[in-house]
Amino acid sequence: MRQDERQGAGATLANFVAAASWADVAAQTHQAKRSILNFFATALGSAYDPAVTSALRTLSPFSGAATSSIIGRPERLDAMGAAFVNAISANLLDFDDTHLNTIIHPAAPVAAPVLALAQARGCSGRDVIAAFILGVEVECRIGNAVSPGHYARGWHITSTCGVFGAAAACARLLGLSAEGITNAIGIAASQSGGIVENLPTAGKNVSVGNAARNGLFAALLAAEGYDASPRAIEGPLGWARAMGDEPDLERLVGGLGASWEIAENTYKPYPAGIVFHAVIDACFKLRGRLNQRIGDIESITVQGSALLLARGDRPVRNQRDARVSIHHCAACALLLGAAGVVEFSEATVVRPDIVSLRQKVRAELDASLPDGAARVSIRLASGETLSEAVMAAKGSLADPLSDRDIEAKLRDCSRLGGTAWDADAIIGNVWRLDTLADVSSLMNSPNEPASAVRAASGNT
Amino acid sequence: MRQDERQGAGATLANFVAAASWADVAAQTHQAKRSILNFFATALGSAYDPAVTSALRTLSPFSGAATSSIIGRPERLDAMGAAFVNAISANLLDFDDTHLNTIIHPAAPVAAPVLALAQARGCSGRDVIAAFILGVEVECRIGNAVSPGHYARGWHITSTCGVFGAAAACARLLGLSAEGITNAIGIAASQSGGIVENLPTAGKNVSVGNAARNGLFAALLAAEGYDASPRAIEGPLGWARAMGDEPDLERLVGGLGASWEIAENTYKPYPAGIVFHAVIDACFKLRGRLNQRIGDIESITVQGSALLLARGDRPVRNQRDARVSIHHCAACALLLGAAGVVEFSEATVVRPDIVSLRQKVRAELDASLPDGAARVSIRLASGETLSEAVMAAKGSLADPLSDRDIEAKLRDCSRLGGTAWDADAIIGNVWRLDTLADVSSLMNSPNEPASAVRAASGNT
Repeated sequence: MRQDERQGAGATLANFVAAASWADVAAQTHQAKRSILNFFATALGSAYDPAVTSALRTLSPFSGAATSSIIGRPERLDAMGAAFVNAISANLLDFDDTHLNTIIHPAAPVAAPVLALAQARGCSGRDVIAAFILGVEVECRIGNAVSPGHYARGWHITSTCGVFGAAAACARLLGLSAEGITNAIGIAASQSGGIVENLPTAGKNVSVGNAARNGLFAALLAAEGYDASPRAIEGPLGWARAMGDEPDLERLVGGLGASWEIAENTYKPYPAGIVFHAVIDACFKLRGRLNQRIGDIESITVQGSALLLARGDRPVRNQRDARVSIHHCAACALLLGAAGVVEFSEATVVRPDIVSLRQKVRAELDASLPDGAARVSIRLASGETLSEAVMAAKGSLADPLSDRDIEAKLRDCSRLGGTAWDADAIIGNVWRLDTLADVSSLMNSPNEPASAVRAASGNT
Repeated sequence: MRQDERQGAGATLANFVAAASWADVAAQTHQAKRSILNFFATALGSAYDPAVTSALRTLSPFSGAATSSIIGRPERLDAMGAAFVNAISANLLDFDDTHLNTIIHPAAPVAAPVLALAQARGCSGRDVIAAFILGVEVECRIGNAVSPGHYARGWHITSTCGVFGAAAACARLLGLSAEGITNAIGIAASQSGGIVENLPTAGKNVSVGNAARNGLFAALLAAEGYDASPRAIEGPLGWARAMGDEPDLERLVGGLGASWEIAENTYKPYPAGIVFHAVIDACFKLRGRLNQRIGDIESITVQGSALLLARGDRPVRNQRDARVSIHHCAACALLLGAAGVVEFSEATVVRPDIVSLRQKVRAELDASLPDGAARVSIRLASGETLSEAVMAAKGSLADPLSDRDIEAKLRDCSRLGGTAWDADAIIGNVWRLDTLADVSSLMNSPNEPASAVRAASGNT
C-alpha cells in the first residue's frame, strides 16, 4: 500500500488497520505471542514494586467498575486504570521487548490497554493478537519515521509513539471504522508526551502509563464521535514537526502489509537498557579471559556510539540509575558473571566491591561502532590490556532468545516479583491465545479464586 | 527570588508556590475573581455542547465516586473526570481568558482541576484563590520562557503549559511540601502535549482536558511519593529542549513575587481567537464609515503579523474554523455589526450573505504590525478605499473589559448555554469567594436541589 497523496498518513495507517484480516496477520502470531509472554514476564516481575503499588493507590479512588486485572495482583481497576498500571509494571525493570531500529519497547503501551479492554469486553484471543500486531505496526512505523533524531532530542520514544499504537490497537479492538481509527490516531497526536530527562525517575512511569491509558482513551473518544486533523502526524503544525522531526513518509506508510515491525522485535536477557547489552556480553568474555584477576584491574574503558554514551554515562545512586549505567553493567558482568534482576537490585547497587569497580569504568565515544555494539578494554596493573568487541548482543535479532529462554525469563520474573499468579498457566494460555474464545481466562489467574479478587475501586 | 544555581527551575518555582502566604497573593484576588468569573461564563456557555456531552459519556463508566460537578449540568464525575470535562467546556467557545504575551488561556487548565479537587475535599475559597493565582503564575512563566517559538512550532501552548499550572496549583491545594510540588511540576513535564494542527478539531479538546486532568494526576502521584528529575523543565534532555526551545531562565524564575502573571490576564468580548479581535474592532469602525454600502464592497484586505496569518488564514467549513478565521470575523463585523456567540454559530457560518462576504476577504502580512494589531482596508466598486488600523483591541490590557462587562458576558453565556445553573448566584459567590469556608457552595448551583444531582458514574 502506498501513501495516497489525497489523504493523510493517519488515514493510510487506519485503512490498513481496519482492513487487515486474520489471514493477513496470522503469520505474525508466533512473534506476537513471544512479545506478549515477555510482557507478562516483566509485568509479573514488577507486580509489587512500590511504584506499581503507589500508582494503584493513586488511581483506586478514580476507577469506575473494576473490570480489568492488575497483572500479578488480586486488585482490579477499570480498563483505563489497569492499562496505566500494567504498562508501568511491564516497563519498570527495563527488561521489556525492544524494537532495535527505534529503541521503542513496543509491548508495554500496546498490550496493556488491549488486554485491559479485551478483559472488560470479553474479546477473543484472536482479536487481541490482531489488535496487538497492528498496534505495534503503527507504533513502530511512526517511530521509524522520526528516528533517530526524535529520541536523541529528548523524547522518550516508547511513550511518545506508544500512544499511537495503543490508540490504533484499541480502536481496532472496538471495531471502529477506518474513519474512526483515523480519528483515534489523530487524537493520540494531541496526547503524545514523555521526556528522556525523567527516565531515571518515576516521571518515566507516568509517560509510559499515559501512553497506554491515553491510547485507549483516544479510541473511546473516537467511538463517541471525536475527530482530529487528518494530518495530525505529518501536517505543518502537526505532531512530527512540533516534536522537531521532518517525518519520513516512506518509512511511515511504505510497504504496509509487505513487512511487519513485530518481526523486528527483540527480547532482553538482561534487565538493563538494550544499548548496554553488548557491554555486558563483552565483559562476560573478558571475565573468562581474566581468570579471577579482578583485583588487578586498573581501568576499564567502554567504547560505543553516541547513543550508548548519551544513555549510559551517568552517576549511579539507585536501581533506576543502575539499569541505564555503563559503569554498573560492566562492574556486575566482570565481578559477578551475571546481569539478572538480582544484579540490578538495590542490594547489589550499594555493594562496596561493585561501587569500587564502577569507579574504574570510563566511557568513550567510538563513532565507528554502530548503536547496539560495544568494545570493552581492561588495563591490568601489570600493564597488560585485554579487549573484546561485541557487535550483536545476546537477544538481538542476530542472536535472539529462544521460546524456552522467554518462558524461563517469565518464570524467573514471576518468582522474583512475589506474585501468586501461576506462571505455567500464563505460559500455556499465551501459547494457545489464538484459540481462546474469551481472553479473561488469561487475565484471571487460576491461583486467584474469584472470591479473592478484590476490586481496587473505592466505589464498589 | 533569584534562580538558585544549585537547584532546578522546578524547585525554584515550587519553593515559591509552597511558601506564598495569603498576604503575598491577596493583592491579586480581584484579578483571580475576574478570571474565575470568565471561566464560569465560558464553561456555562458550552455546558451542553455535543463535545462536552460526548466527553462526559466517554468518562462516565471510568469515574470513581462522583464528587465533583460538571459546570452547568446536573451530572458529576470524580475530580479527575470533572477537571477534564470542565476544562473542555471552558475552552470550547474560544471565549476564554488570554495571557497576551504567550496566547495561553490560563484559567481552563488550572481552574477546572482546582475547583474539582476543592469540591471533592471541601477546601476554602481562599485556598482555591491562592492555588489558582500560583498555578497561573507557574503556567504563564513557563510559557514566557519558551515564547514565541513554542506556539509557532505547532505546540498548543494552553495545553503544553497548562499542565504545569494545574500540577502546581493542585499540589499547593493538597498541601504538598516544596519537594512534593517540585515533583508534581517535574511529572507534569512528562505529560505535556497538544498540537496546533488539531485546533480545528475535537483533538484540541483532548489536550486541554488532559492538561487539567493530568496536572491534578501529577499532584496526586507526587503526594504518593512519585518523583521526577529536578531539571525536568530545563535539563539537556528535558521538556523545553525536547519541545525545541532554549528556555529563558530569567523569564522562568526571575522576579518571582515582584510581578504577577495573572495581572496580565485579559478577557475577550468576542468568542474568537484573540488575535482576530483587532480585525473585528477595525471592521466595526469601517462599518460606521460604510454607512450601509456593504453591497458595494469589492475586496477586503486584512493586514497583520505572521501570527495573525498563521492562526487565521484558512477555509471555513464549520464553527471551529469560524472562530479562528480572519475571513469570518471580518464578514460578521462588517455585515452584522456584531461578533458574539450567535455570530460564530453554525447558522451564521452557512448564511449565504456571510459566505459571499468571506470570499472577498484576503489576508496579507504586514510585519510592521505587532501581534494583536490589525489593519483592514476596503475597496468599493467606486474605486474608493477605506482603511482602519487597531493597535489595541477591546478586551486588551489597554482597553480591558470592566467587571460589569464580565458579569454580562457570564449571563449571556449562561442563557445561550441552556443551563439551569443560576448565573446571579455564581456571580455573587465568585465575588465573595475569599469568604467561603467551603467552595462547594459555589459548585452546587442553587437551581439544582441536591436530590436532582445525578451521579454520572456507572458505579453508584
